[in-house]
Amino acid sequence: MATRSTIMDTNSFRAEHAAGLDANLRKLTDKRQKLLGESYRLFYRKPVHLVRGEGQYLWDAAGEKYLDVYNNVASIGHCHPAVIEAVHQQMQRLNTHTRYLHEAILDYSEALLATMPAAIDRAMYMCTGSEANDLAIRVARAYSGGSGIIVSQEAYHGTSELTSGVSPALGSGQPLAATTRLVPPPDRYRVNAPDLGTWFATQIQRQIDDMQAHGIKFAGFLADSIFSSDGVLPDPRGFLQQAIEVVHNNGGIFIADEVQPGFGRTGEAFWGFARHGVVPDIVTTGKPMGNGIPVSGLLAKSEVLAAFSDAIPYFNTFGGNPVSMAAAQAVLKVIHEEQLQEHSRVVGAKLLAELKTLMDKYDCVGDVRGAGLFIGFELVADRENKTPDKALALDVVEQLRDNHVLTSVAGPYGNVLKLRPPLAFQEQDIDWLVGALDRSLAALGR
Amino acid sequence: MATRSTIMDTNSFRAEHAAGLDANLRKLTDKRQKLLGESYRLFYRKPVHLVRGEGQYLWDAAGEKYLDVYNNVASIGHCHPAVIEAVHQQMQRLNTHTRYLHEAILDYSEALLATMPAAIDRAMYMCTGSEANDLAIRVARAYSGGSGIIVSQEAYHGTSELTSGVSPALGSGQPLAATTRLVPPPDRYRVNAPDLGTWFATQIQRQIDDMQAHGIKFAGFLADSIFSSDGVLPDPRGFLQQAIEVVHNNGGIFIADEVQPGFGRTGEAFWGFARHGVVPDIVTTGKPMGNGIPVSGLLAKSEVLAAFSDAIPYFNTFGGNPVSMAAAQAVLKVIHEEQLQEHSRVVGAKLLAELKTLMDKYDCVGDVRGAGLFIGFELVADRENKTPDKALALDVVEQLRDNHVLTSVAGPYGNVLKLRPPLAFQEQDIDWLVGALDRSLAALGR
Repeated sequence: MATRSTIMDTNSFRAEHAAGLDANLRKLTDKRQKLLGESYRLFYRKPVHLVRGEGQYLWDAAGEKYLDVYNNVASIGHCHPAVIEAVHQQMQRLNTHTRYLHEAILDYSEALLATMPAAIDRAMYMCTGSEANDLAIRVARAYSGGSGIIVSQEAYHGTSELTSGVSPALGSGQPLAATTRLVPPPDRYRVNAPDLGTWFATQIQRQIDDMQAHGIKFAGFLADSIFSSDGVLPDPRGFLQQAIEVVHNNGGIFIADEVQPGFGRTGEAFWGFARHGVVPDIVTTGKPMGNGIPVSGLLAKSEVLAAFSDAIPYFNTFGGNPVSMAAAQAVLKVIHEEQLQEHSRVVGAKLLAELKTLMDKYDCVGDVRGAGLFIGFELVADRENKTPDKALALDVVEQLRDNHVLTSVAGPYGNVLKLRPPLAFQEQDIDWLVGALDRSLAALGR
Repeated sequence: MATRSTIMDTNSFRAEHAAGLDANLRKLTDKRQKLLGESYRLFYRKPVHLVRGEGQYLWDAAGEKYLDVYNNVASIGHCHPAVIEAVHQQMQRLNTHTRYLHEAILDYSEALLATMPAAIDRAMYMCTGSEANDLAIRVARAYSGGSGIIVSQEAYHGTSELTSGVSPALGSGQPLAATTRLVPPPDRYRVNAPDLGTWFATQIQRQIDDMQAHGIKFAGFLADSIFSSDGVLPDPRGFLQQAIEVVHNNGGIFIADEVQPGFGRTGEAFWGFARHGVVPDIVTTGKPMGNGIPVSGLLAKSEVLAAFSDAIPYFNTFGGNPVSMAAAQAVLKVIHEEQLQEHSRVVGAKLLAELKTLMDKYDCVGDVRGAGLFIGFELVADRENKTPDKALALDVVEQLRDNHVLTSVAGPYGNVLKLRPPLAFQEQDIDWLVGALDRSLAALGR
């Protein structure tokens, strides 16, 4: 099984590269090594020192401009004025916790729940996706009476003890929980099956059976419906339906981790799960929700949530505070007003088509797939055997950096470029990105 | 053992009270019950609908002004202009994660570590105190090779699965982890021992021995050094020393949870542990760190942290981002410039003295104790037997609310008023608070 491709080996800065850096970068990397825990990793052999952001662009300390095709936190665009203004206004008025009454959390909950299937009718707020998934697993266990959680083989769901135990992407240093079971990625490019949905449902059933054989009662299936860490696996739409039926038939619940595909990202739907026509029991949100302000959410069917909240107290001090809610409300408003979901669909489709033209030019491009502005660009050593070429992918990431395009890799083999720009990415940015990719592959002799 | 006093039963609003509310409050409470998870609890039989804050004051929708003597998140004062400005400036420039270089996290780490003992030389950032404590326990386990964690009997350390399992304050609905052991509160008012330090160290050793008998290797002792949830237990300074020696002699580490006593709160020291003259192996921070912006930290000895971070990846998307760091840096600067630690010491001592005068007037005031602006005011049914009077404490909290003073209760019996105002609390606020307490006790016939 793959280890650490997504989380650890993304061209992280290593001390041996420090010698070649200019004085400013050297000073900052030295300080990091002196002051921060060793867990802190930098992207790139030559790290980027960013000082400014706007829309889809970032600038470094030397004034160089970069096209950001990686960061979905600044989902509606870096430094979006609507979020800045909403936060500034609310910070001047009040920022306190949810044990006093305040309109903001209620108005936002109404707006957010309105984007969900009617069955999902309750909202709770935390600060990070990890916190949302940690709570979601606890709710799943309280409701099902089981403990077993199924995730995909390269899944990443968070940094807490509980969520790390369901995050194989963290690699062999982080043991999975004894109650965790893995299913292989539903990867249409690599899985040879007449019907991906049937195949994937069978994989789920197999792991439920394995749990049962070990005396572990099944609690639920936790998945990011675009399988981001598994290499971005969007197709075919609807393939999740049979799997979710299996989950429900076995008494488990489906937790849709929308930290990656949510908030209009996939273009085809506001939520990733909706692309598949399934209704989750719990939805978790995070990264893009506040455009950088730490806010996350857990949305659930009331009967599922009640099993937990009737018994166990939960209070998140910062969660749902008026400033977080102001940021989240501004993000939601901008997505609607600027029609960013539709924008993601249209521009994403054009970008996907342009990227696919590189397949004609370079044999190393094995597959290009995506939904909206979330695209996986898979590099292989040879097309016939689909041999993953991780080294090439990492080299391309470095080349792209030199071409002032920021991105990173994903997938169990670390050979898939993850192209996930702020939704502010425009049609005119396509040439920059595709041109840079073209030059990078050419420069690497492909 | 006590259950749910601190977290659950703090006069939370219940549906049966809704009938008596005015239309606006009724509308908001109805909406909450419809939209939010049942875990959301309101303070007070008649909830407070807050719309504005400034310094130590809060205002409700009707324009009524309240003295806040409870909230330590807005530690340097509600809506402090320095934090508003720092966040606004940084939000206009850049807000992204720590895999690119940025000065803010480094400058802040230097400033923060400078307030710590030299042995604590590494910083990491998360978004909530729960995340910091969750990671701290994982680090303690990685370093010690053990799993057993000791906490105090009414401790509260967070909302994640791992931290909930070391939070007996959550009550019987939330099971403690099998590896958790509890020590009784080091309560000078109730414990009859010639030397509290020796007594407490003995309690720690007893639990380590019990772990050993169960085949559980000791990992560490996790404590808030002012024992906030146990009823605010600051005295005598230094009593923790023997306990920490026992912890170290048994191969465990000491995690100082500074979410409550940190950042100048106790007046006598910048950190709660420093009042006791001990050096923790890990320090966790949270609530007051960003004055409401979700930011928390884990500070540790590098050799302790390395045991974890060499093996296990950890990346917190929002943790340490430039906006969080700008807020945290502003808070630190204000504490120094406005000399809030000294302010807390001086004003806290005056407040404590005034509160103690109520002991002469009311027999029900069993004990008043504190450090800086963190005071416990304990109510008893009779002084001789020190019988806790929780019902009275809850009634006083409601009376105080009617006198426009906001606070709540703590302690295993829920009979201790927790007086922990923003550090912006001034000498001239003492009369309001003490007068309101006086009137409340008189009105309740004491």
